Amino acid sequence: MFKQEKPELAVPARRQFLKAGLTAGVAAGAMVAGGRTAFAEGDEAIVEKKDWAVYPGNGVDAAPYGMPSQFEAHVVRRNVPWLTADTVSSVNFTPLHELDGIITPNGLCFERHHGGVAEVDPAEYRLMINGLVDKPMVFTMEDLKRFPRENRIYFLECAANSGMEWRGAQLNGCQYTHGMIHNVVYTGVPLKYLLEEAGVKTNAKWVMPEGADASGMTRSVPLEKALDDCMVAFKMNGEALRPEQGYPARLVVPGWEGNMWVKWLRRIEVGDEPWQHREETSKYTDLMANGKARRFTWEMDAKSVITNPSPQAPITHGKGRTVITGVAWSGRGKIDRVDVSLDGGNNWREARISGPSFDKSMHRFYYEFDWDGSELLLQSRAIDSTGYVQPTKNELRAVRGTNSIYHNNGIQTWLVNSKGEAENVEVS
Amino acid sequence: MFKQEKPELAVPARRQFLKAGLTAGVAAGAMVAGGRTAFAEGDEAIVEKKDWAVYPGNGVDAAPYGMPSQFEAHVVRRNVPWLTADTVSSVNFTPLHELDGIITPNGLCFERHHGGVAEVDPAEYRLMINGLVDKPMVFTMEDLKRFPRENRIYFLECAANSGMEWRGAQLNGCQYTHGMIHNVVYTGVPLKYLLEEAGVKTNAKWVMPEGADASGMTRSVPLEKALDDCMVAFKMNGEALRPEQGYPARLVVPGWEGNMWVKWLRRIEVGDEPWQHREETSKYTDLMANGKARRFTWEMDAKSVITNPSPQAPITHGKGRTVITGVAWSGRGKIDRVDVSLDGGNNWREARISGPSFDKSMHRFYYEFDWDGSELLLQSRAIDSTGYVQPTKNELRAVRGTNSIYHNNGIQTWLVNSKGEAENVEVS
Repeated sequence: MFKQEKPELAVPARRQFLKAGLTAGVAAGAMVAGGRTAFAEGDEAIVEKKDWAVYPGNGVDAAPYGMPSQFEAHVVRRNVPWLTADTVSSVNFTPLHELDGIITPNGLCFERHHGGVAEVDPAEYRLMINGLVDKPMVFTMEDLKRFPRENRIYFLECAANSGMEWRGAQLNGCQYTHGMIHNVVYTGVPLKYLLEEAGVKTNAKWVMPEGADASGMTRSVPLEKALDDCMVAFKMNGEALRPEQGYPARLVVPGWEGNMWVKWLRRIEVGDEPWQHREETSKYTDLMANGKARRFTWEMDAKSVITNPSPQAPITHGKGRTVITGVAWSGRGKIDRVDVSLDGGNNWREARISGPSFDKSMHRFYYEFDWDGSELLLQSRAIDSTGYVQPTKNELRAVRGTNSIYHNNGIQTWLVNSKGEAENVEVS
Repeated sequence: MFKQEKPELAVPARRQFLKAGLTAGVAAGAMVAGGRTAFAEGDEAIVEKKDWAVYPGNGVDAAPYGMPSQFEAHVVRRNVPWLTADTVSSVNFTPLHELDGIITPNGLCFERHHGGVAEVDPAEYRLMINGLVDKPMVFTMEDLKRFPRENRIYFLECAANSGMEWRGAQLNGCQYTHGMIHNVVYTGVPLKYLLEEAGVKTNAKWVMPEGADASGMTRSVPLEKALDDCMVAFKMNGEALRPEQGYPARLVVPGWEGNMWVKWLRRIEVGDEPWQHREETSKYTDLMANGKARRFTWEMDAKSVITNPSPQAPITHGKGRTVITGVAWSGRGKIDRVDVSLDGGNNWREARISGPSFDKSMHRFYYEFDWDGSELLLQSRAIDSTGYVQPTKNELRAVRGTNSIYHNNGIQTWLVNSKGEAENVEVS
C-alpha cells in the first residue's frame, strides 16, 4: 500500500526584486533544433538484469483500487499552515511542478474548504430547486442521472490563486503560487435542464446555489450564465466526484472563480436580484487603492506559469538541451499562444502548445532550448482567443493597487542560477 | 482512509440464446423529448439540514493524496480467479459500468501481467536502443525528459478483451466481458526522436521493445509504426505512470493490441525481420477453424458496449425516462456514429456522442428514451471514420470460427427484464 509522506512545510522565500535585463542563458537564435546533447553510448553492463527483472512482482489481487508508485510519495498536495487559522477553512495546493499534460489526477486536485469536507451519503442526497419557479423540485441522485448528460473539460481556479504575489514574491514554488487550480473532465447534467423542469418564472434573473457543508456556501449567479454552460456534475475524470470536490454533486461554472462552483450542492434558489451574501461582499471582492471594492468579478483572466524549472523543480542535468514546460488557461476561451522569455521579459519566443485545446481548459506548453549554464529570468505570458494578453504584475498593480487578494493573473518570474536552482523573484 | 472491499467473484452466467424479435420496450418513434417522468415536488422537510451540514468536516491535512468516498468502495478493479492459474499472469478488469465520460481514472485502469508488477526505481531505470543503429544508446529517465514531449489520449485494449464470448455469453457484466480496456492521456516522447538519436540503419525494418518484468515481455513492431505515432510515455492522466502500467516508462502503440505496449520498457532492439518470440507465435495469434493461425493482427477493430444498464448495473428507477450509455472505440481512427438497438438488432437508432472525439480514443455515447417496462434486448454498434461497421458475433464466427481467443469485437447483447435486471445473452 502507498505510504503517505508528511507534507513538507512551505518556507516563504525572502522577497527579492531584481532588475530585468540579466544576460539571457541562451544566445539569441539558438533554437532547439540546433546542437544536441550527446547521451552516453550504449553499455550492456548498465542494463544488466536488475532484481525486478528476475523475480515475479505483485499479482493482480494486490490493489483493487490502484495507487501511485512508492517512488512518487513526494507527489502530494501540500498546505501552508500559517496561511489560515484552521484547517477546515484552508487550502491544499496542487503539485503543478510534478504534473504534465492537461489532466489533473483526482488525488492531486487542490482543495479549498470553508467548513471542512462534508461527508454526504448519496442515498440521502437531495437537490432542491425553489424560489421563482413554477414548480419547486427535489431531485435524488438517481433523478439527476435520468437527464441527458454531457462531458466537458474545464479548469477550476480559486480567485485567490497567486493572491500572495500582490505585494511581491512570497512563496517559493509554483505549487504555492499557482497551485489553486485543477483541470478535469466533468460528467453531469446541464443546469438548464433542471431549471426547465422546475419552470423558471419570467421575472427571474439570478440563481443562488447553496452547499450542504457546514459553511452553507452560497453565491449569486446570473440566470444567463446558469442557462448557458453551467452543469451539475457528479463525475470527474470518469469516476465519482471526490469527497473534497463536493461528492456526490457540485456546480460547474466554467471559466468563473472557484468559490462559485458550489460543492455538496443541496439547493438552487431562483430570484430576481443577487443575495449579497458574505462570500460576495466581505469576501471575493477586490479592494482597490481608493478603498472601494470591485464586486462580481467572476471571470478568470488569461494566465500562465512555468512549472518546470521552478523552485521545487530545479534543472538537474546541467548545460545543454533543456525542456521548459508550463500551463496556461483563460476563463474567456482557448489559449491561442504562449510566449516564453529567458531574460525577464526583454525578449519573447513562442512556445509550443501540445495536447487538446478546449475553451476554458488548461493548455500545456513546452519550450526547448540549449542552455549555456548562465542565469535565466524565466517568464511566460498567455494570449487567449479574445486577444487578451496576460499582463505583468506591475501593470496589474497600476490599475488595481496592492490591497487585493483575488484575481492576480500577473506574469510570474523564476530566477534560475547557474546550478539550475530556481527562486521566486520579481523584475521591476 | 479509503477501505478496500474484497473484490467480488464473477459468476459465469448460464449460456442463454434468445431469438431476436422480442417486443421492444418502447413504442417506435417515442423519443426522449416526449413525455417526462414527473419528479416529486419540492418538500422543505426532505432537504432539512443533515448532520453533514451542521458540523465541520475534515480539514485539508486529511489526505495529501486524495482517495474516493467511502460510499464508492464498490468501485474497484476485479479479477476472475478461475481464469488463470496464477495472479502474476492474470488480469484485473476495469469497472466500466461505474464510469462515465472518456477518461479512465488511473486507480481503475485494467491491468494484465505476464510476470507480475516489476518495481523499478526510476533512479536506476535505463532504456537501451541497440541493434541496427549507428550508435547504441542508453537513456536515463532524465535523458528522456530532455526530448520534446507530446500529450495524446489513446485507448489501450487487450487483444483478449471479450475473448470468452467466442463460444457464447459467458460472463455476466461488462466489467468482465469488456473491461480489458482503459483510456488515458499520455505524456511522453515520440519514439521517432529516440530512434533518430541512435541513427537507424537503412536496412532496418522492425523494432523489438523489451520489458524489465520477470516475463521479459517482447514483441516485434514494424519500423513504420514505430516512426509514425509510437511514444515512450512516462505520465498518464497528468501524473507518473502507475506501477502496474509500466512505471517509470512504457511504450504506447496507438490503436494496436495492448500486449505490444511493453511496460517497464528496458530495451528497444532494431532489426530487419520480426523476432518470432513466444508472445507473437504461441500467443496473440488467431487460430482459425481450419487449424491455421492468423499472425500479426495488431489493429483493434471498431467496437462498442453498453455499460449502463448492464448485468452489474440494473435499471433501478422503474418505467419512464431512461438513459442508456456506453463506450465505443476504433484502432483505425475516430468513431463517427454509434447506433443502439432495443430489440436485439431489428431496429437501430442513432446514439448521441458527448465529449471529446480523438483518433484511437474512447468515445462516450448516450441514448435517452422512455421505457415502458417491457423486456429489452440492448445492443450497440460502432461505425468508425473508415466506414467500418462493428459486426455481430455470428458474422465474426462465420469468418473466424470459434477457436479464437483474441480480437472479438462482436456486438454485445444485454437482456433487460421488466424489473430492470440485465443479463448477458446472445441473439441468433
